[in-house]
Amino acid sequence: MSNGTVVLAYSGGLDTSCILVWLKEQGYDVITYLANIGQDEDFEAARKKAESLGAKKVFIEDLRSEFVEDFIWPSVQANAVYEDRYLMGTAIARPCIARRQVEIARMESAQFVSHGATGKGNDQIRFELTCYALYPEVKVSFMDANLMHISHAPADLYLMTKNPEDAPNVPDVLEIEFRKGVPVKVINVKEGKSKDTPLEIFSYLNEIGGKHGVGRIDIVENRFIGMKSRGIYETPGGTVLLKAHLDIETFTMDKEVRRIKQGLGVKFSELVYNGFWYSPECDFVRHCIAKSQENVEGKVQLSIFKGQVYILGRESPKSLYNEELVSMDVQGDYDPCDASGFIRINAVRLREHCRLQGFSDPKP
Amino acid sequence: MSNGTVVLAYSGGLDTSCILVWLKEQGYDVITYLANIGQDEDFEAARKKAESLGAKKVFIEDLRSEFVEDFIWPSVQANAVYEDRYLMGTAIARPCIARRQVEIARMESAQFVSHGATGKGNDQIRFELTCYALYPEVKVSFMDANLMHISHAPADLYLMTKNPEDAPNVPDVLEIEFRKGVPVKVINVKEGKSKDTPLEIFSYLNEIGGKHGVGRIDIVENRFIGMKSRGIYETPGGTVLLKAHLDIETFTMDKEVRRIKQGLGVKFSELVYNGFWYSPECDFVRHCIAKSQENVEGKVQLSIFKGQVYILGRESPKSLYNEELVSMDVQGDYDPCDASGFIRINAVRLREHCRLQGFSDPKP
Amino acid sequence: MSNGTVVLAYSGGLDTSCILVWLKEQGYDVITYLANIGQDEDFEAARKKAESLGAKKVFIEDLRSEFVEDFIWPSVQANAVYEDRYLMGTAIARPCIARRQVEIARMESAQFVSHGATGKGNDQIRFELTCYALYPEVKVSFMDANLMHISHAPADLYLMTKNPEDAPNVPDVLEIEFRKGVPVKVINVKEGKSKDTPLEIFSYLNEIGGKHGVGRIDIVENRFIGMKSRGIYETPGGTVLLKAHLDIETFTMDKEVRRIKQGLGVKFSELVYNGFWYSPECDFVRHCIAKSQENVEGKVQLSIFKGQVYILGRESPKSLYNEELVSMDVQGDYDPCDASGFIRINAVRLREHCRLQGFSDPKP
Amino acid sequence: MSNGTVVLAYSGGLDTSCILVWLKEQGYDVITYLANIGQDEDFEAARKKAESLGAKKVFIEDLRSEFVEDFIWPSVQANAVYEDRYLMGTAIARPCIARRQVEIARMESAQFVSHGATGKGNDQIRFELTCYALYPEVKVSFMDANLMHISHAPADLYLMTKNPEDAPNVPDVLEIEFRKGVPVKVINVKEGKSKDTPLEIFSYLNEIGGKHGVGRIDIVENRFIGMKSRGIYETPGGTVLLKAHLDIETFTMDKEVRRIKQGLGVKFSELVYNGFWYSPECDFVRHCIAKSQENVEGKVQLSIFKGQVYILGRESPKSLYNEELVSMDVQGDYDPCDASGFIRINAVRLREHCRLQGFSDPKP
Repeated sequence: MSNGTVVLAYSGGLDTSCILVWLKEQGYDVITYLANIGQDEDFEAARKKAESLGAKKVFIEDLRSEFVEDFIWPSVQANAVYEDRYLMGTAIARPCIARRQVEIARMESAQFVSHGATGKGNDQIRFELTCYALYPEVKVSFMDANLMHISHAPADLYLMTKNPEDAPNVPDVLEIEFRKGVPVKVINVKEGKSKDTPLEIFSYLNEIGGKHGVGRIDIVENRFIGMKSRGIYETPGGTVLLKAHLDIETFTMDKEVRRIKQGLGVKFSELVYNGFWYSPECDFVRHCIAKSQENVEGKVQLSIFKGQVYILGRESPKSLYNEELVSMDVQGDYDPCDASGFIRINAVRLREHCRLQGFSDPKP
Repeated sequence: MSNGTVVLAYSGGLDTSCILVWLKEQGYDVITYLANIGQDEDFEAARKKAESLGAKKVFIEDLRSEFVEDFIWPSVQANAVYEDRYLMGTAIARPCIARRQVEIARMESAQFVSHGATGKGNDQIRFELTCYALYPEVKVSFMDANLMHISHAPADLYLMTKNPEDAPNVPDVLEIEFRKGVPVKVINVKEGKSKDTPLEIFSYLNEIGGKHGVGRIDIVENRFIGMKSRGIYETPGGTVLLKAHLDIETFTMDKEVRRIKQGLGVKFSELVYNGFWYSPECDFVRHCIAKSQENVEGKVQLSIFKGQVYILGRESPKSLYNEELVSMDVQGDYDPCDASGFIRINAVRLREHCRLQGFSDPKP
Repeated sequence: MSNGTVVLAYSGGLDTSCILVWLKEQGYDVITYLANIGQDEDFEAARKKAESLGAKKVFIEDLRSEFVEDFIWPSVQANAVYEDRYLMGTAIARPCIARRQVEIARMESAQFVSHGATGKGNDQIRFELTCYALYPEVKVSFMDANLMHISHAPADLYLMTKNPEDAPNVPDVLEIEFRKGVPVKVINVKEGKSKDTPLEIFSYLNEIGGKHGVGRIDIVENRFIGMKSRGIYETPGGTVLLKAHLDIETFTMDKEVRRIKQGLGVKFSELVYNGFWYSPECDFVRHCIAKSQENVEGKVQLSIFKGQVYILGRESPKSLYNEELVSMDVQGDYDPCDASGFIRINAVRLREHCRLQGFSDPKP
Repeated sequence: MSNGTVVLAYSGGLDTSCILVWLKEQGYDVITYLANIGQDEDFEAARKKAESLGAKKVFIEDLRSEFVEDFIWPSVQANAVYEDRYLMGTAIARPCIARRQVEIARMESAQFVSHGATGKGNDQIRFELTCYALYPEVKVSFMDANLMHISHAPADLYLMTKNPEDAPNVPDVLEIEFRKGVPVKVINVKEGKSKDTPLEIFSYLNEIGGKHGVGRIDIVENRFIGMKSRGIYETPGGTVLLKAHLDIETFTMDKEVRRIKQGLGVKFSELVYNGFWYSPECDFVRHCIAKSQENVEGKVQLSIFKGQVYILGRESPKSLYNEELVSMDVQGDYDPCDASGFIRINAVRLREHCRLQGFSDPKP
């Protein structure tokens, strides 16, 4: 007699294989689930291994397109960066993977979901919060299988990016086209190649970015539970997109809207990092950010070279950049005399303050 | 008979020379003032030119050290970046220059200060707000001398940085030591060279950064008065310091303090960009940020190569990074069971929400 | 021959009558415009006066309903309060009035709009920013007619509210029903009276609030242009709505959504106070706030007595308040053991900090 | 043989008496600790009861003065209000009580502290976080003694405040004097009575506020752990101080400093509500807020009547309120022409936006 059905997030590796066996020994029916979000993996070998270890059913799900569209694109719109540096590749993968796992659990009438994400890291939190948020009745079983074996040596730290020192001596030049704040096309200007589906665009940016060593960082970050931990990340495509999106956004968005949206983006990043992708507040923030992107449209030209992304130019039908207004000769609504009034009115408060209390740091 | 005395911010160039002559024609005594904040300029030639055009007095002031200590260092502490990209080299130069000009005006009993900062740009605002803030009774006379002549062609756009494509093929490796959030020493690890006064440190970082093409940007930014304008900037030393400071700060500062300080840094950047260095609120923000830097202390190792800065590592006597706590084997205050409770408590709200209203974006 | 047509915001009083006459003397055709936003005024007398002074056309427009629906309702949703105290009755009236004035100007092909809102106050700014925002080509002529005469004595300071000391000794008890964050019905519980159109609801709350002396304040506020000024305001209906809305909002909105929305509400208040109702950022903020109100639905019971509003209770079909979950006996998703884990995880960072640096204020 | 020593937060009531007995049965030496923070209690009866139940030692500590000075005063400076309404009397009492308990535990070499604060509420969190923060090695034992008995009926809900309907028909008029943002003196204007120590001032404001029914609220609030709960609070003295402090602060503080400080105050309130009084971030925020209060000095006159506090006036040697500047006749730094320039510069962006994209809500 079964104690119930568990959907196990299975990687094919030693850790989750141990969990599979252990769960079966405890009398559970085990359904394994392996998500393809673009990692380099032998999915068929994993299927065979799961079956041989007694999995009742094996799901191997290609989530690559929905990962790009439902999770990466909103992060691009948000300019999502945690603590000024981390682009959160793993943080946004987790809710994507768990969302499908919960769908399978509901579909298969499984009361349990299980995973082997490490206990001290953020991944356990992200995984479990998503499960509870989308399937409140579920029981989550976490097994810290890492305890059973030594860690991997970090020899193969960088998988996606070349060492910038070994990168090509000639830049690639890309043009990325955005609509509503997400890329809709990328063109390699010299080669004439172009991509226009979300998955192809993102994969191509990963390829080109990786070839030039873009997006490597070695940081100490603050985990949700309060500890600092060192992380070494590579996000080639994400880094290219962040720079390009920042550029087209500033070009097309009103400055005060941008200021408010920038604060929402910081909030979004914290929420996602901490595992709250599926929360009412993250829903709300995503909605607001998406609203801000309505006119973020146009093309950005950029060059990628030796680990760095250089913006070369941009153009947009929705631009608020009025070359004539900025130039000296055409006045538009701008009258230099007004500027003096503007400054003097801004100074009323400062002069009053100086008379009454002075400023603390000037030497005079 | 004189109409009064004007202290004119004088560059030695055509624009401000025109202003000098015009002011004299209007019956003013003109004192010229030229600040050395590190620009490449023939100061003695400027002095002679001013004298020959009838300046009553000529001040040439070396402000380099105070520019670094009083203006650049607080900006480093703040991680000051405007609109996510611009490091504000010119925005912080302006109050430094105007501060001394106002000192001279008070000293020389001049009722007027004058400058030729362009009318449509931000510099007029920054200059004039500083004057009013520090010398409320002053009269500011602005002359848009640019109207008199055509603009410079932008042939010599980049003065401080090499083109990254032409930069050396071998990185430089630096170690920067911080105390209270400001650099106190820089060592070139391979060459063994070191610098330890503010001015020398910053000049050296400019030199090394420039040699490797670090810190070039081509952006469209939002000016204070609401127009978008294109800016091409190079901030080699500032870029190196920003990356290094971000690293040591995250390493040594509590994560929640950092979050609050990050918001204050954004505010600081807006204030400085808009010309409010000397304002009660910028005073207040600077004070708070300085307070947050008390334990920002330690050494950052980094490599500079082809336009990019790579953090190699960091160490600090004040680190909150507890390697043992993070590792799997030593538990410290951390108990894996607590994590489950932590997650379930965080999920109470999410589960309740899901039951009542569901989430908007998941497919299930 | 006419110098053009001016639409003048006309009050029927001495100031704007002077402006009318002066404009005609300068050779303009003058169209007068008087908005009815609920003030106590003899509109027909004003019409006759305008005509007798030579107005080419007279518009008297009843904007009461659109004032309530388009301007007051969004402010209620935002819990709009400037500097923690001022409910901004006049700040939101200005864009409402100017919007119609600009419509008339377009309709009548007038190139000019004119008003007599005082120069040092905020009203000039609010009026003119609205005109420029909605009719960029318009020319705004402001005449500080107040300079021509002495100010009104503040004898009749309070027009809408009774002195609380003279207010009835028996409270009124109301039930206000909200949908999407705006009131859709108010019932006087004892009297059985009810109102259910926006204008009637708001007028009735003004009446009852006024009768009990609710919503009087005497404050010093910070004007947009930096000066402090004293203001004496009465907002009886707005005060009742603010309290009721705060209550139903907290009852029905997720706490983290509320936190983000609270920040947006502060931003909204600053924008509106400063005259930016019609700005891209205020549009954006209003949209986000409206989104947050989707589930703000239910009934609030309150008592109004001697200047004060007391919340008696609330109920909602969308409540997130789960009485069973809160109570001791029914556990729901909440397990007391989880709380200990939750606390200990939150404490990891604090204990580490105490060991390394201690806390600054405890005596031990 | 003892299992160790426990310092138990003891109230003299049934709950904590049960805990005392149970702890002794488990083999612990129990030291009871009862804090006097101004509650109405028979402390000597509690001492006798504790002794009779076998407490090894009994501490009864008068913390009233330090509660006012170290906890209430910083909250007054912050205008601390949680979710726009709750003044957090109990939230700030908890760290005060726990701080002393931890001191006693250290002094008595006790490894354990224990309390009976209820499990589902916030008090357990506040208590335990404080203990861990100040004594990282301590073991906290929480016993949910409430489970043992039925709850108190809420008959005696309001202890400190009169029903406003039964309050006196004549107002009291007070003058409160502030220095550095905290009250240093209160005078009852009609009676001539005055108080000038922190404890006396606060007690007197509680007395007068209570007499007039000030500070009662009935709210639903969001607990830290995510549930909504209903709370009925009375904070007479705190409410009077909040209104008076808001007034003198706005009167004396620069508006932009105030805006930043307002955000810090919201953050402070969340931290304190959630139990993080002793945290690096709350330390930091308290420091910043205290800095902002340096010039918050002066006297506020107010009237207290039927549950309401009315500000009558204020005066300050540090006021930034310049009556002459505000008036029409004296110009100071303010020139009406400048205002037009100021407005037109602010409108540049709005006009450009209108031309390109229009505004979403105006009817035209």
